[in-house]
Amino acid sequence: MRLVDNPDANYYAYPLDLCAEVSEQLQVTKVYQLPSSANDRTHDTPQPYDYHKIQSPAASEYHPSLRPPPRTTTKPYQVVQPEGPSFETHGNRLTWEKWSMRVGFNYREGLTLHDIRYDGRSLFYRLSLAEMFVPYGDPRSPYPRKAAFDLGNDGAGINANNLRLGCDCLGVIKYFDGWHNTGAGEPLKLPNVICCHEQDDGILWKHTNFRTQNAAVTRARVLVLQTIITVSNYEYIFAFYFGQDASIHYEVRATGILSTCPINVGDQVPYGTVVGPGVLAPYHQHLFCLRMDPALDGPKNSLQVEESVPMPVGDPAVHNPFGVGYTTTRNIILQEQGLDLDFAKNRTFKIINEEQINPVTGTPVGFKLLPYYSQMLLAHPESNHAKRSEFAKHAVWVTRYQDDELFPSGRHTMQSAGGEGIASVIEQRQKGPPAQSSVRNEDIVVWHTFGSTHNPRIEDWPVMPCEKMSVGLKPLNFFTGNPGLDVALSTQETNRSVLSASPPSGCCKS
Amino acid sequence: MRLVDNPDANYYAYPLDLCAEVSEQLQVTKVYQLPSSANDRTHDTPQPYDYHKIQSPAASEYHPSLRPPPRTTTKPYQVVQPEGPSFETHGNRLTWEKWSMRVGFNYREGLTLHDIRYDGRSLFYRLSLAEMFVPYGDPRSPYPRKAAFDLGNDGAGINANNLRLGCDCLGVIKYFDGWHNTGAGEPLKLPNVICCHEQDDGILWKHTNFRTQNAAVTRARVLVLQTIITVSNYEYIFAFYFGQDASIHYEVRATGILSTCPINVGDQVPYGTVVGPGVLAPYHQHLFCLRMDPALDGPKNSLQVEESVPMPVGDPAVHNPFGVGYTTTRNIILQEQGLDLDFAKNRTFKIINEEQINPVTGTPVGFKLLPYYSQMLLAHPESNHAKRSEFAKHAVWVTRYQDDELFPSGRHTMQSAGGEGIASVIEQRQKGPPAQSSVRNEDIVVWHTFGSTHNPRIEDWPVMPCEKMSVGLKPLNFFTGNPGLDVALSTQETNRSVLSASPPSGCCKS
Repeated sequence: MRLVDNPDANYYAYPLDLCAEVSEQLQVTKVYQLPSSANDRTHDTPQPYDYHKIQSPAASEYHPSLRPPPRTTTKPYQVVQPEGPSFETHGNRLTWEKWSMRVGFNYREGLTLHDIRYDGRSLFYRLSLAEMFVPYGDPRSPYPRKAAFDLGNDGAGINANNLRLGCDCLGVIKYFDGWHNTGAGEPLKLPNVICCHEQDDGILWKHTNFRTQNAAVTRARVLVLQTIITVSNYEYIFAFYFGQDASIHYEVRATGILSTCPINVGDQVPYGTVVGPGVLAPYHQHLFCLRMDPALDGPKNSLQVEESVPMPVGDPAVHNPFGVGYTTTRNIILQEQGLDLDFAKNRTFKIINEEQINPVTGTPVGFKLLPYYSQMLLAHPESNHAKRSEFAKHAVWVTRYQDDELFPSGRHTMQSAGGEGIASVIEQRQKGPPAQSSVRNEDIVVWHTFGSTHNPRIEDWPVMPCEKMSVGLKPLNFFTGNPGLDVALSTQETNRSVLSASPPSGCCKS
Repeated sequence: MRLVDNPDANYYAYPLDLCAEVSEQLQVTKVYQLPSSANDRTHDTPQPYDYHKIQSPAASEYHPSLRPPPRTTTKPYQVVQPEGPSFETHGNRLTWEKWSMRVGFNYREGLTLHDIRYDGRSLFYRLSLAEMFVPYGDPRSPYPRKAAFDLGNDGAGINANNLRLGCDCLGVIKYFDGWHNTGAGEPLKLPNVICCHEQDDGILWKHTNFRTQNAAVTRARVLVLQTIITVSNYEYIFAFYFGQDASIHYEVRATGILSTCPINVGDQVPYGTVVGPGVLAPYHQHLFCLRMDPALDGPKNSLQVEESVPMPVGDPAVHNPFGVGYTTTRNIILQEQGLDLDFAKNRTFKIINEEQINPVTGTPVGFKLLPYYSQMLLAHPESNHAKRSEFAKHAVWVTRYQDDELFPSGRHTMQSAGGEGIASVIEQRQKGPPAQSSVRNEDIVVWHTFGSTHNPRIEDWPVMPCEKMSVGLKPLNFFTGNPGLDVALSTQETNRSVLSASPPSGCCKS
């Protein structure tokens, strides 16, 4: 079926129209033909199937060896750090600006971060991507089996790319290696699985005093820890960004190649996009779960939900004569549970330490979550997908810390028939004494589920430009002022920008 | 009241406790004392007011001349483009990679963009920030008057900063000047009000063929057009980002200084944050309106609302045996109206050209809006704020193009008593023949309202680290494949990254 004789041809552009079932004894037990249209089902015998007749190989290839020469308009762009990077590493301990942390790596989660501090103050005990689930929305057999736990089934560590200088990061790069083991128990080095570098991030803060016309402007530098995994067709780029303003951002970029299946030429289905003649890219979701184990000024923290609400009008007990007043409601979560986002109420999830009161604001010190607003799991609550991916039901979960409770779909996702996820664990613990599942002023863990309902575009084909998703954590009355206030002003002496030498202006000149 | 004798002292750190009302004849008609606590009101005579007694000047100053020496840990970071930038300008016409557009500038809107094309195909006739509204949530007189239309009242053009090389942008910079006029009608040059430069944006796309282990990776270059305005205390950084994948992002960064008022030391109010002794930063909202005048393959476009919905389970007419299927519903908007966001349904706003069918997908060509999820106006619908800022009621508006209909709160916001905004205009036109307000397959305009409910943090004081808000536009079955597919692979020859020379690893070494 493959029309291009090149090992780097795009396999997903030429989907086979058959499927083989293999037994545990590695015997082929059944071969059948895949459905060819919305109304078609699997067949035991071949049907007339015309999709392969009119493939257009060039449009479906991404590898440069199979493509016309690339554009030449993109001029080189280099990052120069004449005095070296601003970070230092000692083994896996990393320090940068006022941050310190330890960088971890394992087979399943890949990159993990530990004991994250700012200016010596404890912020997070551990940050990690805990799971991701990719269920497909094509209802026809055998596709309801397409539903990957890319961490639990595959492993973000073992699938991490060996990153290359000048390709995956720009500037002055520090690589971290990972370690795994061979089948024989020997240590196995996974080289360059994490890259660490700095980026300029535009302006950090600026103010011009309009009375004196004096401007003060600082540029933002960020520290990036990035790892990239290949899971069959897809690539995921996972990166933590640390800011001089004490913010943390976790970014996921989805790239790589769509997982496809065959379709009759000219047909359409309501649960997929035709990306090439005879090639269907079915709708699917990418649902990630970021695990945040906070330790804001110590291990005992609480989760507070704040909403911004209009003050009532016409209530004699409330002074709001012009109807413009608004206040915040604050609710501390008492028991383990899953919670939903609501931007219409400016619902804000704050991790706070109730025992540490900010000396200026008079409120508990905290960090707020900047969530990534996303649709939760679309599969029916009684489906296998839903039973196996309980974390995909709510955007925010809070649990009491338990040793080894790292995975919101349980430890063994491949064999899971459901009932092992975060909701089941919470339900189980709620049967015990209330103190057991209390999350107020305790050692808590906060989990954020986010992702994308990925209804493919033709622009995602034959290789997908990165789709970015970003989650943030920002101090909220944790410090006593802007943590980046002491960043030096931006100067041309240091930054050495250059005026563009454009062609002469004016339409009249040729 | 000001404790620091320096013209660059932070005026907002020492709020006066009095307010003077001035007549149109410029006579002081009234002087009164501002409220000192939640239960206090204005007074005609001074009250014991202790907030000024214990100011802590150093903590409230941001200007380097009033601060301890800055941190010295941030090493220089420079962008070098040995062959110059990838963009070209001829007058106000800008070309970069496959993009072309014209750069505009005016007193009120500041930066505007015109006739935006990709690879010669028309995308947008005009993009502009159309208005912004900053209402404060403190209900006590005189604060309900605090509600600025920063474009309509002040002007994003006339308040645009004169940008400096090495400060506001990094790399090879092209500046555009703006032109205004003096009171005498003479031309007045506003130098360097827009900067244009390129940035590296990490990875554009990557795939590793796991069969051959061959990786193909490209880096993303973006073109940035940035302008910065100072409106009294606040700064806003507005930037359009153009991508090689034919995406456009519009980013707002809010920075500068919080607008403050006095408060008794030790007091708290439920509609503000105490950021210094005696200094209250009241809650407020920043509501922006981005005006998008599309011309996707021509002037006649439609707005389509797509949602992702589970397929029913148990319906014999629907094949969904495992409960995992999902499809999309698509609804073309027929009449002018305001619409709301709903991430829980993956509600997607698509601008499409129904007359141009994508040859591969079989669907109309389009672009989708990546909205910024934000709370709409909190003030009561009957308040002056709500009447004057109708655009702040819904996140997405679609209207029929009309000459000079550029401002969603009307032309004269300063004097507006309400009833001149986008909702009123729509309502008025709906009284006419339906064809007059039809927006299907017509010359339409799409407006996106977004922003932040800004309940100040102490970390926003005394100068605020940028708060970023970003809106995107991405092709959706507009092209016939990834528009960035022809970007050359990333190579070390071009990028010249450098391995970090870290201190020797290992905790045991001192």
